Amino acid sequence: MPLPPALLTTLHSTFPADALAIGEAERIAYSYDNSRRHALPDAVVFPTEHAQVEALVRACRAHGVPVIARGRGTNTTGATVPVAGGVVVSFERMNRIVRIDPDNRLAVVEPGVLNADLQKALAPHGFFWPPDPSSAPWCSVGGNLACNSAGPRAVKYGTPRENTLGLRAVAGSGEGFRCGTYTSKGATGYDLTRLLIGSEGTLALITEATLKLTPKPSAVRTLRATYRDVGSAARAVARIMAQPVTPCALEFIDDVALKLAHAHGGDSVPLAGAMLMIEVDGEPATLDSAVGAVAAAARGDGLEELRVAQSADETRALWAARKALSPAQRTISPNKINEDVVVPVSHLPALVDGIKRFAAKHDVLIVTFGHAGNGNLHVNLLPRDDAERKRAHACLAEVFALVIELEGTLSGEHGIGLAKREFMPLAVPASTLELMRNVKAAFDPDGILNPGKLLP
Amino acid sequence: MPLPPALLTTLHSTFPADALAIGEAERIAYSYDNSRRHALPDAVVFPTEHAQVEALVRACRAHGVPVIARGRGTNTTGATVPVAGGVVVSFERMNRIVRIDPDNRLAVVEPGVLNADLQKALAPHGFFWPPDPSSAPWCSVGGNLACNSAGPRAVKYGTPRENTLGLRAVAGSGEGFRCGTYTSKGATGYDLTRLLIGSEGTLALITEATLKLTPKPSAVRTLRATYRDVGSAARAVARIMAQPVTPCALEFIDDVALKLAHAHGGDSVPLAGAMLMIEVDGEPATLDSAVGAVAAAARGDGLEELRVAQSADETRALWAARKALSPAQRTISPNKINEDVVVPVSHLPALVDGIKRFAAKHDVLIVTFGHAGNGNLHVNLLPRDDAERKRAHACLAEVFALVIELEGTLSGEHGIGLAKREFMPLAVPASTLELMRNVKAAFDPDGILNPGKLLP
Ligand SMILES: Cc1cc2nc3c(=O)[nH]c(=O)nc-3n(C[C@H](O)[C@H](O)[C@H](O)COP(=O)(O)OP(=O)(O)OC[C@H]3O[C@@H](n4cnc5c(N)ncnc54)[C@H](O)[C@@H]3O)c2cc1C
Ligand SMILES: Cc1cc2nc3c(=O)[nH]c(=O)nc-3n(C[C@H](O)[C@H](O)[C@H](O)COP(=O)(O)OP(=O)(O)OC[C@H]3O[C@@H](n4cnc5c(N)ncnc54)[C@H](O)[C@@H]3O)c2cc1C
Repeated sequence: MPLPPALLTTLHSTFPADALAIGEAERIAYSYDNSRRHALPDAVVFPTEHAQVEALVRACRAHGVPVIARGRGTNTTGATVPVAGGVVVSFERMNRIVRIDPDNRLAVVEPGVLNADLQKALAPHGFFWPPDPSSAPWCSVGGNLACNSAGPRAVKYGTPRENTLGLRAVAGSGEGFRCGTYTSKGATGYDLTRLLIGSEGTLALITEATLKLTPKPSAVRTLRATYRDVGSAARAVARIMAQPVTPCALEFIDDVALKLAHAHGGDSVPLAGAMLMIEVDGEPATLDSAVGAVAAAARGDGLEELRVAQSADETRALWAARKALSPAQRTISPNKINEDVVVPVSHLPALVDGIKRFAAKHDVLIVTFGHAGNGNLHVNLLPRDDAERKRAHACLAEVFALVIELEGTLSGEHGIGLAKREFMPLAVPASTLELMRNVKAAFDPDGILNPGKLLP
Repeated sequence: MPLPPALLTTLHSTFPADALAIGEAERIAYSYDNSRRHALPDAVVFPTEHAQVEALVRACRAHGVPVIARGRGTNTTGATVPVAGGVVVSFERMNRIVRIDPDNRLAVVEPGVLNADLQKALAPHGFFWPPDPSSAPWCSVGGNLACNSAGPRAVKYGTPRENTLGLRAVAGSGEGFRCGTYTSKGATGYDLTRLLIGSEGTLALITEATLKLTPKPSAVRTLRATYRDVGSAARAVARIMAQPVTPCALEFIDDVALKLAHAHGGDSVPLAGAMLMIEVDGEPATLDSAVGAVAAAARGDGLEELRVAQSADETRALWAARKALSPAQRTISPNKINEDVVVPVSHLPALVDGIKRFAAKHDVLIVTFGHAGNGNLHVNLLPRDDAERKRAHACLAEVFALVIELEGTLSGEHGIGLAKREFMPLAVPASTLELMRNVKAAFDPDGILNPGKLLP
């Protein structure tokens, strides 16, 4: 389905030749993301200015052509795959850090800035931006905002929703707008900023973000606790979160994941029934008592060993192994089914027990690890052939049903995209979905932004 | 304008006799709020169940009759005044604490629970809910959510937007719905929870809220610093917020406010060019170094005296004087104009200097105090007669213009209501206002919820 000639003419006049791709090879490069789904876009554009994005959306709207925002395509749900064709807007060249303002604890950035580049630029000022997906070196702030992506630190410092002050964007109507504030507080009308966060490019394209910065704690200590089985570890998580000292990371790794991590990280990664990686940060003077409180809660039935990482090297190895878990699974199953369900932490023991039960019942390999302090587990089903794939899907349905029964929800940080769209009615009541559809229409009356995603 | 008989019949069948008021005396009692504006509603209802609210909104929608949510009427902007008549829904009897779940750091409450009652119920569990308006003993959680109300603690712990997990509500369409999660993290569709927070009853009526709890710090220390003049104090605020230790309160009080507070609080309130009240919380072992860091930043040109409150009594007296400031001004001017503008903290010195200049130029008494750590100042103009009132309004226009010039916004925590509606276009661009109107229509297609408020 080639683009209407009049639209192509507008694209040519809006973007320089090297910022508009219509050749097949280039379009293929923007047809897929980390979900392994793909669909060819009709064109790819590389804006460097807000005004170009406005002109683009207006023109596409006039011709009823889909517009799909893209950061770096690292999402796992197919959220950037142009299933209905149209124009992919890659924000990779709109990647300036406009302003770092430590006095007001904020930074203004373009959406294409990579998360890790931002952190590097903030460090000399003594600040960081809390969202820290494992993909930080390769994913964009725009993608982080659009998915409400987080990582280990969210348990203490929150997700993009708690760490964004304002946005500049272009709605599906083609209208550019600014929302939010440059201040740490505001009560001036509806909160459109948070509404855009997590909306996966279906309401508006973000062209600038004002991010709230957090002072970098001056010291951190890493603990590892191994347990006899997953249930004991999950109960320890619930105990840790029920006492007042909030760790800045509380990661759960099950026995299957530990074997994988051991293969990558070597002997510094223990083999056990389950492991918790716990980080506590603060000022040096406070760390001993904070670590003490967390360690006391980590102790309990089923604990095998609790120790403070002995060296910076060991800490690095533990984290490297943890970070390698996602890619490592690909070597087992190119078709891994990647979920990131979330339940209230006190229900984690019931969730991990259920997962083990379902894995046995359906005879599928399941690797479970994740941000347990938020009750957020990555449940990865690793089918190796078609028969296993079928069984995995049946198993998944039971996992979701259990999560909902435990007052949880479908996604903690990866979002919905294509992959979980059909499951939305499980987690979101019909009347709420109806309101979400109304909100979609309020921003994108003709439904041109990222069609086929998020809403069922 | 009496209610249509068919609607009255529905009201009678939905609410018991003692939960429906149509007598004039009772309606008068619900005709005004702390703004001193008033307008008579046609009826007042007192729901105790979500289903009643749904039935009510459906019936009112069928007859095109306005519905105005009301907590305890303590807002300062006329947000609950039924300017177009209709039915006031007072949530004062829907005040159950449904569940306190310390293990998951959440509480489920009905909207009519008073903020202070909630805090009291949470204390034995070692938790608190951060929003802490000075009106805590008299205002409802529903009102706090609808206004995004905060208080001194927001500088460290955030506003309702950072401290709410999910809501149950009834949209202007008459549809009941649930949004958000029981988990501390989620990426399952649009964030309707935050959209309702701060929407002042114009999108939906909140019938239940799931609040995120924070562990109560075990120790706190109060400092007071007096300065030669307001500019020196404002510069100290900017220095304090630019270093890593975030105080849990950082209140600014100008010379005029200090005189008032002295009259109420006695000699424990010093007289000076300006004062900062600073609180630092944490674990006992950490307080000395945290207080040291904050005190170092508080020092600088213009500091007159810096001291730690000598006793619990002195701390109490300082806070009592601070909290008495709002009501105390009424004794000077029953027509006080109550603003709560906010600017990035580094621009506070320019703002307080500007306010002093405008006060002199227009010859109006202005009392300035507030949550300086968020850059949020209560700027209260106290005209004593009609001539002063006129001058005050001219002065106010200059204050707003300066706030916007300094990258600030109209309201930090009181909201817009009737009082600031006409000024919205100053702070919010036309294209953003248009989107807000679309969002309003998405929830409330016939515009029956709190008409005449928030949106110009
Ligand atoms: C190895 C690996 C590890 C990962 N670890 C984590 C993790 O720990 N935590 C986590 O949360 N995620 C993780 N992810 C998922 C992924 O990295 C995040 O979702 C990330 O935020 C996506 O950023 P991106 O720039 O790649 O966005 P993309 O994948 O390009 O896009 C994601 C979504 O955002 C939208 N979007 C992008 N830019 C804009 C814009 N400017 N305006 C509007 N919409 C926009 C797209 O339309 C799409 O819906 C991981 C992925 C990989 C491959
Ligand atoms: C002495 C004094 C001190 C104050 N100090 C502060 C302060 O420090 N910080 C601060 O932020 N504010 C302060 N305020 C303002 C006020 O107390 C807050 O705005 C408070 O949150 C209002 O709560 P309320 O229950 O009185 O709500 P109301 O005044 O009854 O209503 C306020 C708004 O909320 C809406 N609303 C109420 N309940 C619901 C519901 N269930 N669903 C949907 N909408 C609803 C109403 O329609 C209205 O728009 C102060 C007021 C006074 C009188």
